[in-house]
Amino acid sequence: MSKTFEKLQPYLEKSMALQTARNLFDWDEQTTAPFEAADYTSKVIGILSDEYMKSLINEDVEKLLKKLQEKKEQEELSVSEKAIIRELAITYEQLESIPSAEYRAFNELTSISSRKWAKAKKDNRYQDFAPYLKKVIDYKKKFAGYRAKGDKKPYEILLGDFDECFMIKDLDIFFDQVKRDIIPLLKEVSKKVETIDKSYNYLNYDIEKQREFCRYVSGYVGFDFNRGVISESAHPFTLQLHNHDVRITTNYIEDNLESSIFSIIHESGHAIYEMNIDDDITQTLVGGGASMVMHESQSRFYENIIGRSKEFWEPIYDKLVDAFSDNLYNVSLNQFIRGINKAAPNLIRTEADELTYCIHILIRYEIEKMIFEEEIDIDDLPKLWNQKYQEYMGISPSSDTEGILQDTHWSWGEFGYFPSYAIGTAVASQIFAYMEDKMPISEYLKTGNLTSIREFLRDNIHKYGAIKNTNQILMEVCGEPFSAEYYVKYLKDKYTMLYDIKFK
Amino acid sequence: MSKTFEKLQPYLEKSMALQTARNLFDWDEQTTAPFEAADYTSKVIGILSDEYMKSLINEDVEKLLKKLQEKKEQEELSVSEKAIIRELAITYEQLESIPSAEYRAFNELTSISSRKWAKAKKDNRYQDFAPYLKKVIDYKKKFAGYRAKGDKKPYEILLGDFDECFMIKDLDIFFDQVKRDIIPLLKEVSKKVETIDKSYNYLNYDIEKQREFCRYVSGYVGFDFNRGVISESAHPFTLQLHNHDVRITTNYIEDNLESSIFSIIHESGHAIYEMNIDDDITQTLVGGGASMVMHESQSRFYENIIGRSKEFWEPIYDKLVDAFSDNLYNVSLNQFIRGINKAAPNLIRTEADELTYCIHILIRYEIEKMIFEEEIDIDDLPKLWNQKYQEYMGISPSSDTEGILQDTHWSWGEFGYFPSYAIGTAVASQIFAYMEDKMPISEYLKTGNLTSIREFLRDNIHKYGAIKNTNQILMEVCGEPFSAEYYVKYLKDKYTMLYDIKFK
Repeated sequence: MSKTFEKLQPYLEKSMALQTARNLFDWDEQTTAPFEAADYTSKVIGILSDEYMKSLINEDVEKLLKKLQEKKEQEELSVSEKAIIRELAITYEQLESIPSAEYRAFNELTSISSRKWAKAKKDNRYQDFAPYLKKVIDYKKKFAGYRAKGDKKPYEILLGDFDECFMIKDLDIFFDQVKRDIIPLLKEVSKKVETIDKSYNYLNYDIEKQREFCRYVSGYVGFDFNRGVISESAHPFTLQLHNHDVRITTNYIEDNLESSIFSIIHESGHAIYEMNIDDDITQTLVGGGASMVMHESQSRFYENIIGRSKEFWEPIYDKLVDAFSDNLYNVSLNQFIRGINKAAPNLIRTEADELTYCIHILIRYEIEKMIFEEEIDIDDLPKLWNQKYQEYMGISPSSDTEGILQDTHWSWGEFGYFPSYAIGTAVASQIFAYMEDKMPISEYLKTGNLTSIREFLRDNIHKYGAIKNTNQILMEVCGEPFSAEYYVKYLKDKYTMLYDIKFK
Repeated sequence: MSKTFEKLQPYLEKSMALQTARNLFDWDEQTTAPFEAADYTSKVIGILSDEYMKSLINEDVEKLLKKLQEKKEQEELSVSEKAIIRELAITYEQLESIPSAEYRAFNELTSISSRKWAKAKKDNRYQDFAPYLKKVIDYKKKFAGYRAKGDKKPYEILLGDFDECFMIKDLDIFFDQVKRDIIPLLKEVSKKVETIDKSYNYLNYDIEKQREFCRYVSGYVGFDFNRGVISESAHPFTLQLHNHDVRITTNYIEDNLESSIFSIIHESGHAIYEMNIDDDITQTLVGGGASMVMHESQSRFYENIIGRSKEFWEPIYDKLVDAFSDNLYNVSLNQFIRGINKAAPNLIRTEADELTYCIHILIRYEIEKMIFEEEIDIDDLPKLWNQKYQEYMGISPSSDTEGILQDTHWSWGEFGYFPSYAIGTAVASQIFAYMEDKMPISEYLKTGNLTSIREFLRDNIHKYGAIKNTNQILMEVCGEPFSAEYYVKYLKDKYTMLYDIKFK
């Protein structure tokens, strides 16, 4: 380790410890903490956040960072150290550009606006939320302005926080293809949706048995219970303290079998990524996944591409039927596979099928772009939202609760996040296409051998953490940059076969 | 708030936040964290502990503390601020006296020695643990030496960490009384123990139903689920982040009904104390209970004095029978009360009945005193232990696992802790005697009205946190200093009546 890097190390370690503590409080709040704790605990979190800021944003770190970016110093650094410096520079720029008083005011605002959003969603009153949303957007525009360099647009700054490789130009191309290819496919599929009987899914499923099966399927795909735990929360999520402590949650719905199973496979995909990151870089700035896009690509790889395939279920479907024999005794594997892939226009993103999912994201992307690139009236968002659902899916929400108010992201100021979900899915398809060429994935799945698949992902993607970005990973794994072709082809092949339709 | 105190405030708040984070990691490790997390998480905890040290032990705090101890400054302070300064002075002296390298080495040692203890206990090999125990004791003697002022003995320094009001002189008087009065009583009771049939307790009790009943009884005594949670861990404990987030654990044993019920009432007693501490002082240095003695007095008040009384069970025993009707349908309330108060010589402290409990503590107290006040050979401890059990209880362990190795405390360096358990119980009896004079406790219990009892404890003890010490509380509540008479009388009355024996 170079002497200059060594001097930086205590600052990095202190910030890592404070960040880990914040993560643990986050986990705890969503899984354990009692109802009335928040007001007092938020004081603790506020102090830890301030200390985190101070541990990184100070003159010493600034000097060391500058020095370590010099060519001579760079030559002394290892690959991971270089990546840490690159990541520190980004974090420094993000945190340092915003005056601390404004940063605190913004955090206070989002804490209120997220509560206002929850209330407004419950009451179906967008007008109660709109004033807060406006303020949040104003702050986001302001903050993006502080960080804008050259001709970068504000929305690109925000997108960059979730993946530096996907800018407006790339997303426009991607979503154009979605419009051109996926929307017509959905229309064809919709005509035949009534042929699929999925009533079995909405019978009564014992929660304790769901818990047991989810634990089984999570371990089956590769979740390591020596390094992770499963808990429950209102919304499923993954959170890690480091690569030896990765936690996932789900929630169980008594009259919906699929919900917990596919959310647990999804979160297991995130968790496997984090568990496979090298010991050498865990607890550093590059010790997490490469980006939101890369992360979603792995969770959706497990959830959809593998998890909703017939081959995946062949060796384990009997176990599911055994667990819920009263409900599934006369549901064949084929019926089940058609059930878990049933696709039709729908209003709620989190309940969307694989085919409509990217259309939900398309709509959010177009609206976010308008918010930041055009001067639109925030009061008009519900109208705009409903129009777009009508245009792209042929249906329109009957309430704001089912429409503009359904997602929490904007109330927290998370703009530019949604596209990661769709691009991640497309990246997963591209990696899958490559892997299918290189190994007998179908055979592996049919024989319950997921080890080779997991090892491929570990050795080519996971272990590097954030040392490489999404494009570098794709170039090295697939030998070409991102392309949406694989995604479109994957959906076309899957759905034309499943629904027995002809579609060019 | 005085200007000087105001300057101190950020240091106090930072240390509070870091301490709260450490508490949360502690909770998490014992209830949630995956098996392999420890090595990586300990790095985080190490850094947070260092930061905690630095936040309090520095020149700024030293100067402010000195100034705030001056008469003129003291005049400007409120009662709670004065108490905070007193507490800070104690903490400062504790932390500052030990060179940080030795402090770290000691923490590393106890982390190893506690694991060596667990292994040695499992293997019944005291000789494998003894070398580590010796080192731990050497450190404790050394550290006590650093802090010794005037003619204070090392063991008194250690005792003072758990309660400043009980020194060797007080404990000698107390334990002499135990020897004089309780041991003969136990001998009389032992003769009649066979008349009590407690076989019902060891049948099979469904864990989920135990969970449900424990939750019920915890709420019944006053645990507030809006401010607290119940979880599970190997050893039951209570931990608070602040007065709005108090957590307790228990563990459920399938063939032992009593175990979880009385441990949950015990921990609820601790929790009610913490929940009732004033909002104004929570998250400060005086925001916890007054001392270990005071804390144990409250937990044992609920567990034993109230919880093992017939009056307590009168309104709720039917509920217990309903929950476990297969096992309890022919167990009368009287039989149950005799069962939960069955007393006989026994070897394991944590399984001891109310009558023998203080004898277990007497033995530990005498041995600890010898370790620190005399030059005894640590290799001889098992012999000494067994002799004392023979002398006081008439039985002797057949293995070190059941003897000297049963408790974890010493492996962590916790000497001087045990007496708190016994003195706490005696304090509880004294407070109970006073309360019985002032209010119709029996009537309250019989009618399921625990509110008045809880409010008395809150208004006279709990709300003050650590603003007052044990003696101050006793003087103000009972109008006299600590006296063991009430404890002896309580046990005599209870057991002569229960066993229908004559005993002067």
